[in-house]
Amino acid sequence: MESYRVGLVPGPVKVPQEIFNAWRNDYGSSDLESEFFDLYRDNQRLIQKLLATKNDIIITSGEAMSVLWASLKCTLKADDKLLAVSSGLFGEGFAEMARSFGVEAEVCSFPFDEVPEPQKVFDFAKRYRPKVITAVHCETPSGILTPCLEDLGRIAREVDALFVVDFVASAGGVSVDVDRCNIDIGLLGSQKVLSLPPCLSVSSISQRAWSVIEDVNYSGYESFIGWREVPSVLAPYTLDWHAVKALNVSMNMIFREQPEKVYQRHKEAASLCREIGQEIGLKLFPKDERYSSPTVTAFYVPEKFTWPEFDRALREKGLAVGGNYGQLAGKVFRVGHMGSQADCELVREGMDIIRNVAG
Amino acid sequence: MESYRVGLVPGPVKVPQEIFNAWRNDYGSSDLESEFFDLYRDNQRLIQKLLATKNDIIITSGEAMSVLWASLKCTLKADDKLLAVSSGLFGEGFAEMARSFGVEAEVCSFPFDEVPEPQKVFDFAKRYRPKVITAVHCETPSGILTPCLEDLGRIAREVDALFVVDFVASAGGVSVDVDRCNIDIGLLGSQKVLSLPPCLSVSSISQRAWSVIEDVNYSGYESFIGWREVPSVLAPYTLDWHAVKALNVSMNMIFREQPEKVYQRHKEAASLCREIGQEIGLKLFPKDERYSSPTVTAFYVPEKFTWPEFDRALREKGLAVGGNYGQLAGKVFRVGHMGSQADCELVREGMDIIRNVAG
Repeated sequence: MESYRVGLVPGPVKVPQEIFNAWRNDYGSSDLESEFFDLYRDNQRLIQKLLATKNDIIITSGEAMSVLWASLKCTLKADDKLLAVSSGLFGEGFAEMARSFGVEAEVCSFPFDEVPEPQKVFDFAKRYRPKVITAVHCETPSGILTPCLEDLGRIAREVDALFVVDFVASAGGVSVDVDRCNIDIGLLGSQKVLSLPPCLSVSSISQRAWSVIEDVNYSGYESFIGWREVPSVLAPYTLDWHAVKALNVSMNMIFREQPEKVYQRHKEAASLCREIGQEIGLKLFPKDERYSSPTVTAFYVPEKFTWPEFDRALREKGLAVGGNYGQLAGKVFRVGHMGSQADCELVREGMDIIRNVAG
Repeated sequence: MESYRVGLVPGPVKVPQEIFNAWRNDYGSSDLESEFFDLYRDNQRLIQKLLATKNDIIITSGEAMSVLWASLKCTLKADDKLLAVSSGLFGEGFAEMARSFGVEAEVCSFPFDEVPEPQKVFDFAKRYRPKVITAVHCETPSGILTPCLEDLGRIAREVDALFVVDFVASAGGVSVDVDRCNIDIGLLGSQKVLSLPPCLSVSSISQRAWSVIEDVNYSGYESFIGWREVPSVLAPYTLDWHAVKALNVSMNMIFREQPEKVYQRHKEAASLCREIGQEIGLKLFPKDERYSSPTVTAFYVPEKFTWPEFDRALREKGLAVGGNYGQLAGKVFRVGHMGSQADCELVREGMDIIRNVAG
C-alpha cells in the first residue's frame, strides 16, 4: 500500500500536514543565511528543554542509524571495550556494530521480553571495565521500555564509562531526563515520535563525551567532530533547511500541547491498545505489562495465523502494523502508537480491525 | 534572507513546486511496501539511463558528503594508495579525507583555474600505482568542468586502479557517460542539478568496484555494503519515501524535457552568464572560457569591492550568489545556474543586478 487508511506502523509514522507544510517554503542556502542559523539554534534550545539537558544538541542529515554509528565510531578505537546492555535487537546491535570495526564488545544480555537488571549490569561493568556502556530506551522490535536509565547512568559513572542511549523510539513520547540519567550521548531519529520523514538525526552530547570524541578524532560523514560549534561555524556539509524547519514545527507542536500532556496521550493510547488486545485474547510480548512501552505495543501473532496471513488480512481492511526481525520474525507483531499515531481513536480503529480479523 | 527573489547560489538550488509536491503525499513505511520498492527501482532505471550506464545505482539518505566518504572508505584500507586528480578544492578534499583514515594519498595537482592534463596524470599514476584514482567533474568552487573524464578513466584502467568521480554538480546538467568513461564509482547529490533539498545521495557502482568494496568490507552508515541488492533486500536503514519520490519527479522532469535539451539549456544559461559578465567587465576565474562549467560560473570579485561589501550590495537588490572557500575565499564568487536555475531569464535578471552594482 502506498498509504494507509489506518496506519499503526512503529515508524516511519504518519507525517501531520502541519509538518509537511515546511516543504512549501522556498528556502535559500542553509550554508549562508542567518535565518537558518537561528532556526537551528531554536531547535537546539527546544530539544535541550525536551530532554532536560544542558548538553550540546546537534542536528545532522541522515537516518537515525547515522548517529548510532557515530556514537560508537566517535568514542571507541579498535581494542577499546564496549558493554552493550541489551534486552533486544537494537541492544545487541550496538555490540555487533562495534565489533565490525575492531572494538571488543560484550553484551550484558537479558531476555527480549524483560528489562535490564541494574545489579547484573553493575557487576558486569565492574568486572569488564568498558570505555562505553550502551543502552536502548525503547526496544521497538519488542515494544519494551527500559525503566532503569537512571540506574544505568549511575553505573556508567561509577565505572568511569561513557553512557550512550538510543532513545530513537521514545524521546518526545516518554519523558527522558538526559542530565539526571547522566546520558553522555543521546540518540534520536526523526521518523518516530517526532513524526517527520526519516531525514534527520538528533544527538545530545555531554562535555565528558566531547573530551573522548576529540581524543578519538574519528573522521567521516558519521563523525560528530566539526559539529560542536555549529551553527556558529559552518556545518561539515549542507544541511536540509526544509527538514530542519519540519523539526522545528514538530518541536513547537510538542511544546504547544505541553510535553506532560503528550506523554499522557502516549500512555493512554498504549493502555487502550493493551486493553483491547487483552479483550481480544492477544498475548502481550513483554513478560510484564509494566515493561510495555508507551510508544509501541508488541503482541504475539495469534496462533491460528502465520504472520504473512495475519498481515494480509489486516491490510485487506486497511490496517498496517509492524512485523518483526531476527528471532522475533514471524512471531511478534507491533502496533506503533507514537507521535502523530498516539491517538486513542486511531488505536481503537486499528484494534477493532485486529479484533475483527483475529477475534 | 530566508528566500531569494533572485536565487543564483550554486546549490542548494530553488526546489520547483512540482518536486515539493512529493511532500504532499501520505506515504506508508518504505521498509514494507512494494510501491516503494517499485519507485526505488524506477529511479535506478532512470538514473542508469541518464548516466548511460549498466552499473548498479544506489540511493541513500544524507547529503552528498556521505557518498564522497563512502567511495573512499569502502575501497581503501589504511596504507592503500589514492591518487587524487585535482584542479580544485574538492579534488584536494579527496586526498585529505583519505589521509584522515590512514590512507596514503598523493595529489596530481593543477592550478585551480585550469583543468587536469591527462598525460601528467598518466605519468603520475604509472609511477605511483594507486589503488583508486579520484576526479571531480565540476569543481563548484572554481566553476570548472573537467573535460577529460574519458582520458582519466582510460588511465585508471591502464594502471588497474578504480576510477571514482564526483559529478555532484554536473550530472543531469551536463552529459556524463559513466560506462564510456569507465567510472567505477560515480557520486551525485540531490541539491544541485536535481533541484531537491540536500536529502539524498546517488552512487553508480561498477562490478569492478563491488569486488573491491566486498574485499574491503567497510562497515558504517556510509558503507555501500548491504545496498547492492536493495530494494530486493531490505535497506540498511529506513529510506525517506518522500525524498525518493521527489527524486523520481526530478528524473521524470529531465526525461520529459529530454536530457539533450536540458544540457542545451544549461549551456545557454552559462553562455549568457559569461557574456553579460564580459560586458560588465567581470573577470572570469577559469583561465580559458572553455573550462567554464555549464552549471556554475566563477568570476573574480570586482576590484572595487571586498566580497562582503559586494555580497551585501547584491543582496540589497534581492540577488544571492555563492561566495567561496579556502584559497578562493573573498576573491572569487559564483553564479549557480544549475537545475531549476539553468534559466536564461533568471540569469539575465541576476546579471543585471550585478551590472547595476558593479558596472
